[in-house]
Amino acid sequence: MEELQLVIGDKKSSSWSLRPWILLKESKILFTEISLVLNTPEFYEKIKLYSNAGKVPVLLHGDTRIWDTLSIVEYIAETFPEKKLWPTDKLQRAFARSIVAEMHSGFTDMRKNLSMNLADTLHGKSFPDEAWRDIRRIESIWKECLSTQKGPFLFGKEFGIADAFYAPVVGRFITYGIELNPTAMTYISTISGLYSYKEWVDAARK
Amino acid sequence: MEELQLVIGDKKSSSWSLRPWILLKESKILFTEISLVLNTPEFYEKIKLYSNAGKVPVLLHGDTRIWDTLSIVEYIAETFPEKKLWPTDKLQRAFARSIVAEMHSGFTDMRKNLSMNLADTLHGKSFPDEAWRDIRRIESIWKECLSTQKGPFLFGKEFGIADAFYAPVVGRFITYGIELNPTAMTYISTISGLYSYKEWVDAARK
Repeated sequence: MEELQLVIGDKKSSSWSLRPWILLKESKILFTEISLVLNTPEFYEKIKLYSNAGKVPVLLHGDTRIWDTLSIVEYIAETFPEKKLWPTDKLQRAFARSIVAEMHSGFTDMRKNLSMNLADTLHGKSFPDEAWRDIRRIESIWKECLSTQKGPFLFGKEFGIADAFYAPVVGRFITYGIELNPTAMTYISTISGLYSYKEWVDAARK
Repeated sequence: MEELQLVIGDKKSSSWSLRPWILLKESKILFTEISLVLNTPEFYEKIKLYSNAGKVPVLLHGDTRIWDTLSIVEYIAETFPEKKLWPTDKLQRAFARSIVAEMHSGFTDMRKNLSMNLADTLHGKSFPDEAWRDIRRIESIWKECLSTQKGPFLFGKEFGIADAFYAPVVGRFITYGIELNPTAMTYISTISGLYSYKEWVDAARK
């Protein structure tokens, strides 16, 4: 099979890039990485080579270019069905896709107020009610998944697409020192304890 | 099979609701409609019955609740594989999912400046550069699809998920009288000429 290449932004702040990157790493799917630093002249020059949409991440597979995180993860799931990256049960899969799509299009107040910054610790900031509404919604999604599926991941024993989509949020919550219910705190430990997550954060701090 | 029910917002302004609604109609999949008027006390009361995410659209199928447009259309595609709502070719499907996911998460400047209003004609407004960048990007996506696939729809002879996702944009462009290249203008005529589209707009004007 032709090599997979993933074009990503810098690891400190590109929350969207972390999603497919950690999915590929956790699924032990080989790929090479092409890194661009967001919002630099070089970024705007180079991203044009890979995507007309002008954004990272982009997955390159032979002549095929797949962009936008949700499309990338669906492509990976289709290409590697044996990895079972979505739940195999249809209703569980619909639920997983719903929380993934909700993350993909929403939580704008959380994004705006808790911008991803994996290089620093920024405890003690205060946030508007709208941001807290988003945080509480995420907390309740995690609780629903983890009480139904018994963890440690959102849909059971294996890391999957839903976990990949919520991994950047774990990073935001750690950066800003957000206190959540015990179930959510355990999930944050699970994700932040992964080798792949640590590898990403280590690179973000360099 | 159990009945499908689609919870939607009002037809004048709920662009997200139009996507699965027009997909079901064009695919001749039977469903009943539950309409709520956005941003009313009744909306906030009733939406809780259907979705913890608090947003329309929601698809109800027996005891299953699927929310967020992208998850809903994936569920419909899986439930009715014979309808071929995604392109059957893997690379075409990846491309279709990319432009759908791009619409799902992006084009915020277009959304903000050309808010959906299917009941009125609002020609002659001027828009900031960022909104025009979004409009030009959509124009170029349509051109790429229609020149590769020969139309009349984005991925060939049949209406599919990509068309459903871009149908609300067609409505915005008509409302604000946006002038585009001939390929795009033809596509706008194709979508706005559909019986289902007219049915939605007629209801929006009542």
